[in-house]
Amino acid sequence: MASPTLLWIIFHIAVAAEAMTAALAAGRRRMDWFGVCVLACVTALGGGTMRDTLLGHYPLTWVANPYLLLMCCGAALLTIALARFMDKLRWPFLLLDALGLVVFTIIGCNIGLEMGLSPIIVIVSGMITGVVGGIMRDILCNDVPLIFSGELYASVSIVTGVLYLGGLGLGLPADLVILGAIAIGFALRVLAIVLKLEMPRFVYDKDLR
Amino acid sequence: MASPTLLWIIFHIAVAAEAMTAALAAGRRRMDWFGVCVLACVTALGGGTMRDTLLGHYPLTWVANPYLLLMCCGAALLTIALARFMDKLRWPFLLLDALGLVVFTIIGCNIGLEMGLSPIIVIVSGMITGVVGGIMRDILCNDVPLIFSGELYASVSIVTGVLYLGGLGLGLPADLVILGAIAIGFALRVLAIVLKLEMPRFVYDKDLR
Amino acid sequence: MASPTLLWIIFHIAVAAEAMTAALAAGRRRMDWFGVCVLACVTALGGGTMRDTLLGHYPLTWVANPYLLLMCCGAALLTIALARFMDKLRWPFLLLDALGLVVFTIIGCNIGLEMGLSPIIVIVSGMITGVVGGIMRDILCNDVPLIFSGELYASVSIVTGVLYLGGLGLGLPADLVILGAIAIGFALRVLAIVLKLEMPRFVYDKDLR
Repeated sequence: MASPTLLWIIFHIAVAAEAMTAALAAGRRRMDWFGVCVLACVTALGGGTMRDTLLGHYPLTWVANPYLLLMCCGAALLTIALARFMDKLRWPFLLLDALGLVVFTIIGCNIGLEMGLSPIIVIVSGMITGVVGGIMRDILCNDVPLIFSGELYASVSIVTGVLYLGGLGLGLPADLVILGAIAIGFALRVLAIVLKLEMPRFVYDKDLR
Repeated sequence: MASPTLLWIIFHIAVAAEAMTAALAAGRRRMDWFGVCVLACVTALGGGTMRDTLLGHYPLTWVANPYLLLMCCGAALLTIALARFMDKLRWPFLLLDALGLVVFTIIGCNIGLEMGLSPIIVIVSGMITGVVGGIMRDILCNDVPLIFSGELYASVSIVTGVLYLGGLGLGLPADLVILGAIAIGFALRVLAIVLKLEMPRFVYDKDLR
Repeated sequence: MASPTLLWIIFHIAVAAEAMTAALAAGRRRMDWFGVCVLACVTALGGGTMRDTLLGHYPLTWVANPYLLLMCCGAALLTIALARFMDKLRWPFLLLDALGLVVFTIIGCNIGLEMGLSPIIVIVSGMITGVVGGIMRDILCNDVPLIFSGELYASVSIVTGVLYLGGLGLGLPADLVILGAIAIGFALRVLAIVLKLEMPRFVYDKDLR
């Protein structure tokens, strides 16, 4: 089957891309090199870590595959070295991040499926894998997490998960379903960026307390 | 035995109430609808999640009962729809929150008792269940957690847990102990709000570093 | 063997010292006594908790040894009582904190070794044990974690872990390796404070998003 290999390759590209964007966020906070590496690891691997901790799915991915930590640190240090060129790479990073979002989501769904969890939890497992790394990055940088008030992001993860589960439920070939869910989810995220699609916001200015 | 059913009913009311107050907090931060739902789930279910993760008690409540996630999202979206009426509901929410605090505490103590843990950890298990959701809400909203400098809240949880364990230790009927602990804990929390009872604060202005 | 006992003694001194510095941080945020105790427990025991949660190593240290929670709360309340003398204790605290850092690191490495994990993860396990408590303290106080932009701290933990593993790998007596790693790590941390040794920072002011 080709898809596990394809997923595996895209997973590694996405991990490196997430580590690099995290390194830039660390640079904006003037963190030291150690902080840059930690933020890179947390951002790139934090979603899967949160998922596995919540599901009791041990050992964690990076505990079983420690080279992932080295890879994240390497990507982060490379980002420091190449920082001056980074602002010209806005679009490549956005596209890699979009690809990572949908691939992380599908990998997270697969863990949920392997554990025999209910469909809602499988989709939540995918979403946690896709989006929690970015939430942790924002908390460590002392920001209100961007994901709670930005362009469609978590919704893309949910749609991807629903399409993936739905396709498998219809009995379509797994490879086809994976590629289809990746393609649609990716296109949706890019559309959201280009068209600045946002979820409606809830604005409440009164103080209940 | 009537109490498990009663606990079960109050648990669901409290989960919905916590989700709704979290939605209002999200609205004050102008989060989008997704952020509102996440904050609702984290606030309402985060205490039990933290407890189970720390105790290694799998599967988590919402993994075994995914409808709880839908319920929290439903309560959050209902809050958005009804936001204009919410500022008239200050007292009902405070009372539901107080009820939730003591019921969450007793449910948390029960988990600790089932696992055969020592009394101190049983009480801590109850307190974590009662108060950690609110701490997570404040961290995600980028505030210093309110619980660390507000009216008696965690102390109410500890008192409830001590009364509950003490009553069971005296061999009183479980139903009676549960109702008694809920009644006293609830009254204490309401008193704390009405009389603005606070723990003394520790103010230290020097910089050690 | 003398070292487990020695480690055990220094572990308790370090836990108390971490709880006391956390209490001072809580005082700077004007937290109430409950907040002071929570922050003390989280700071002193949070590193080991994070380590055990990530490694699936249950029960947690403080669940198996609840007296540690009481000890942290006792140290925190003592700090409140003695706050007026604390600013004269800057150096004792810095030295105890440095000792705690290296001892926590070695204890964390030992857990990783007992679980048969790979060397990288053993060192990460030590580092998490040594530094995560302070990161949690800063998040709960709503700061950007100090560790990401201060004097050498996590690096000291990594060096200590590498020395410890290296010494064991060379077949040296365990007691000697422990004492050597503690001595060198401690000296390095004190040097870092005295000479204000810092990791280079990564400063990036452009906004990629």
